[in-house]
Amino acid sequence: MTSELQDLFAFLSFPSVSTDSKHKADLLGCAAWLVEKLSRIGLDTDLHETPGHPIVIARNAHVPGKKTVLIYGHYDVQPPDPLNLWDSPPFTPVIRDGKIWARGATDNKGQMLAHILGIEKTLREKAELPVNIILMFEGEEEIGSPCLAPFLMANRNDLKCDIIAISDTGMVAPNTGTLGYGLRGIACAEIKISGPARDLHSGLFGGAVANPATAAAQLVASLHHPDGTVAIKGFYDEVRPLEKWEHDMWAQVPGVTDQDFLDVTGSPSLFGEPGYTSAERTWARPTVEVNGIGGGYQGEGSKTVLPAEAFVKFSLRLVPDQDPGVILQKLTKHLEAHCPAGVRLEIMPGHSGKPYVSDPHSHFGKAAQRALGRTFPGEPMLIREGGSIPIVQAFREILGVDSLLLGLALADAQIHSPNENFPIANFEAGIRLNQALLEELAH
Amino acid sequence: MTSELQDLFAFLSFPSVSTDSKHKADLLGCAAWLVEKLSRIGLDTDLHETPGHPIVIARNAHVPGKKTVLIYGHYDVQPPDPLNLWDSPPFTPVIRDGKIWARGATDNKGQMLAHILGIEKTLREKAELPVNIILMFEGEEEIGSPCLAPFLMANRNDLKCDIIAISDTGMVAPNTGTLGYGLRGIACAEIKISGPARDLHSGLFGGAVANPATAAAQLVASLHHPDGTVAIKGFYDEVRPLEKWEHDMWAQVPGVTDQDFLDVTGSPSLFGEPGYTSAERTWARPTVEVNGIGGGYQGEGSKTVLPAEAFVKFSLRLVPDQDPGVILQKLTKHLEAHCPAGVRLEIMPGHSGKPYVSDPHSHFGKAAQRALGRTFPGEPMLIREGGSIPIVQAFREILGVDSLLLGLALADAQIHSPNENFPIANFEAGIRLNQALLEELAH
Repeated sequence: MTSELQDLFAFLSFPSVSTDSKHKADLLGCAAWLVEKLSRIGLDTDLHETPGHPIVIARNAHVPGKKTVLIYGHYDVQPPDPLNLWDSPPFTPVIRDGKIWARGATDNKGQMLAHILGIEKTLREKAELPVNIILMFEGEEEIGSPCLAPFLMANRNDLKCDIIAISDTGMVAPNTGTLGYGLRGIACAEIKISGPARDLHSGLFGGAVANPATAAAQLVASLHHPDGTVAIKGFYDEVRPLEKWEHDMWAQVPGVTDQDFLDVTGSPSLFGEPGYTSAERTWARPTVEVNGIGGGYQGEGSKTVLPAEAFVKFSLRLVPDQDPGVILQKLTKHLEAHCPAGVRLEIMPGHSGKPYVSDPHSHFGKAAQRALGRTFPGEPMLIREGGSIPIVQAFREILGVDSLLLGLALADAQIHSPNENFPIANFEAGIRLNQALLEELAH
Repeated sequence: MTSELQDLFAFLSFPSVSTDSKHKADLLGCAAWLVEKLSRIGLDTDLHETPGHPIVIARNAHVPGKKTVLIYGHYDVQPPDPLNLWDSPPFTPVIRDGKIWARGATDNKGQMLAHILGIEKTLREKAELPVNIILMFEGEEEIGSPCLAPFLMANRNDLKCDIIAISDTGMVAPNTGTLGYGLRGIACAEIKISGPARDLHSGLFGGAVANPATAAAQLVASLHHPDGTVAIKGFYDEVRPLEKWEHDMWAQVPGVTDQDFLDVTGSPSLFGEPGYTSAERTWARPTVEVNGIGGGYQGEGSKTVLPAEAFVKFSLRLVPDQDPGVILQKLTKHLEAHCPAGVRLEIMPGHSGKPYVSDPHSHFGKAAQRALGRTFPGEPMLIREGGSIPIVQAFREILGVDSLLLGLALADAQIHSPNENFPIANFEAGIRLNQALLEELAH
C-alpha cells in the first residue's frame, strides 16, 4: 500500500460523527492526527478550540505579492447507520474493486486529504509552493458548521485570501473535470406533534381523541401538491429561473441524464416538479424532504396503541435567491395553519445555510478550468450542486471571496449512505489536481 | 401480604410478552406456573402445546345435569416499552396507593387470577363447585390468538359448555358492577413504502425521486376526512346504527362522559366522528388508527437523508356488522388507489377479529347481573367495549355459546401503556364475583 493510502486509511479510522455527542473524543483524536500530519509536512499548524469541535489551520510561510489560496475541508462525517447494510465496517477502511470503502471516504476525508498530499508532494518536489496557502479544516460541516462563521469573523484578517478551493462536491462522471459554481441552500426543522398524556389503548380510546401519528402524516401531506410541487404559500417567490445556457450545458453533462438518476438511485421511477430534468430539479429547484418520521410502536409485530406523540424531521433545499430564515417562517406559518384539531404542534428550527451561485467564467474560474483540463481529459463541465455547503455562502459574506468547487465525488459514492466509497483513481487525481490548481492560480 | 397477593406477584413477574420471540421461554415458564397453581387447588390440569404459545386447560370433575361454565383468560401481556416511562420496573410488581403496579396487572393476569382464586376459595369453603367448570388460558391474546380457534375446533367436544365468562374488559367506575355485551372487532395491517435502493443524500437527489416517508404520510392522510370520519369507500356500509336504549343508558353510565375521556387521556381536546359522544365513538363506531409510523433517521440531531423506505402499522376497530376480511379488502383497494407515484407499496394484513354483540337480557345475562348486584352496590351498568377480544366471536361461531364480559379494568388502569395498575379492591372483588357468579349461573 502506498504511503498516501496508508495516510487515508488512518484518517478514515476515526469515527468522527459530529452529530452524536458520544463521539466527541473521536473528533478530537481525528483533529490531533491532522495537526500531526500537517506539521510533519512542514506547515505551520494550529488547533483552534471552539464551543464545538476544533478547527485546524495550517499555512506555509506567506510571501508578499503571491496569491493567497484558502483550501477548506471537513474531517467530520455523517452517522454510519443503518450499520447492518454495510458490506464492511464503516470505520475499518478496505479496498475492493479499486475503491476505498468507509464512512467519509468521499465525504470529505478522501477529497480533503488529496489536497494535503498534493501540497506535500509539491513541497517535496520543489521545496516551495507557488502560492501562499491557508488550509482550514473543520469538524462540524455535517451539523451545519455552527462554529465556523464566528471563527471566520474573529479571524477575518488572518484568513484574508484571494480565492477559496473546496473539493466536497460531485464529479459528473469518472475522469471528468467538474467545476461547480452553485449550491443549494438548506433549512432544517423538526416538529413534534403531541396528543394524549401517554400511549393509549387504541381500542379503548381510538375514535375519541386525535392520533398524533395521523396528525403528523396529515401535516406532511399538506406540504406538497400531488404533482410534486411544494404547497407552502410563497415558497417559489424568490426562486431565480434557470438560465438558458445552463439548461443547454447541463443537457450535455454526462452522468446526469434522467436514466442516470434512475440507475443511481434505484428508485422505481423518477418523480419531481413537472417541466424540469432531474439535474435541473436537484441543482436549480427547491424541495421539502422528510429526513425522518416516527411515532408509536416501532418493533416487531403489532402493538395496538394510539401513540402519545410523533415527530418529523425536515430538510428544505433552497436555491438562489431564497432565504432560509424567510422560508422557515413560511414553513412555520404553513404548519400552524394546517395543524389538525386535537393535537399540540411544536416546531424546532434546525441549522440552515443560504444557497450560492457564482460566475464560472471569472479570472479564478478560468484558472480552475485550466487545472481541471490538465488533470482530466476534455473540457471541464460547469455545474451546480444539489447539496449544501452553507459555509461557501459564509466565505462570500465574511471573507468577501468566491469558492471554486472542484468535485471528486462520483454519483455512486454513496455518501450519507451505507457503503460509502471513493475510487483510488479519484484520490490520486485529487493529488495531481491540487498541484496543477496551485500553479494555475498563481498566475 | 395475603397469599392471594403473593400468587399475583409471582404471576406478574413473568415477562410473558407474546409478540416478541425472545420471550418464548418466559411464556413457557408462566404457563408452567399456572399448571402448578391449578393442579394444587385440585383441578385436573393439562398444558396443551400449540404452534405458538401453550394453552392451559383445567377442570373439576364434571357432574351430569350441572351447568357447564367456561372461564377464559390470557397469561400473555403487551410489550412494556417505552421502559423509561415506568415509575417501577414492569415485571417487578409493587403496591402503591392501594394498587398493584406491573405490566399485566389488569390486562389480564389480575382479572384471570381472581377467577382462579375464587374457585380455590369456594373449593376450600364448600369442597365442591356449584357448576362444572372449564378454565381455558391462552398465551397469544395480544397477538390475535392465532392458535386458539384451531384448538377450539379440534377440542370442540371437550370444551362443550353452556356459557362463557371472561374478565378482560372495563369497569365503568370504581366499585360499579359492569356487564359488557359488545366488543369492537379489529383488523390489523402494516404497509411498507419503498423507493430508492438505499437512503440517499437529500441534497444530491432530493427533488428527483419520490420520498417514501412523504408518500407514507400522504397515504395515511388519505384515510380520513378533515372532520375525522374515515374516507375509505364503503367503510360505513355495514355499520349497525346505535339503538335508542343504548344511547339513553350510556348517557347515564358513570366514568364515560366526554369530560372523563378528556381527563383520562390527557389529550388537549377530544376529536372524533361528529354527532356522537366519546362513549359512542369508542363503543359503537369504527375507526382507523395508526399504531406506529417510521422511516428515515430516528436519532438525535439531523441527518439529511431521503429514506429508502417507511412503514405504517394500522389497526382498524370494527363494529357490528363489519367483517374484517371485507374491510381489509376495502383498505387495500383504497391504499392501492391512493399510492403516490414513484414508490412501491407492500400491504401485509395482520391479525383480525370480528365485532361482537349479544343480548344482556338473556337468561345467563340476568344471572350475571344478579352476581354483579351481589358483589357491587347498585344496578349493574350494561355497556359495550371499545377494545377487541376476537376470541369471543370465535366462541360463538365454534362453540355456539355467548360470553359474559364481567369487567374489572378501570379506565385509568393504563393497560398497554407504561404504569399499568390494578386496585387491590378490584382484585378482591373479582374473587368474590367469581364465587357469586358460579352460584347464580348454577340456577
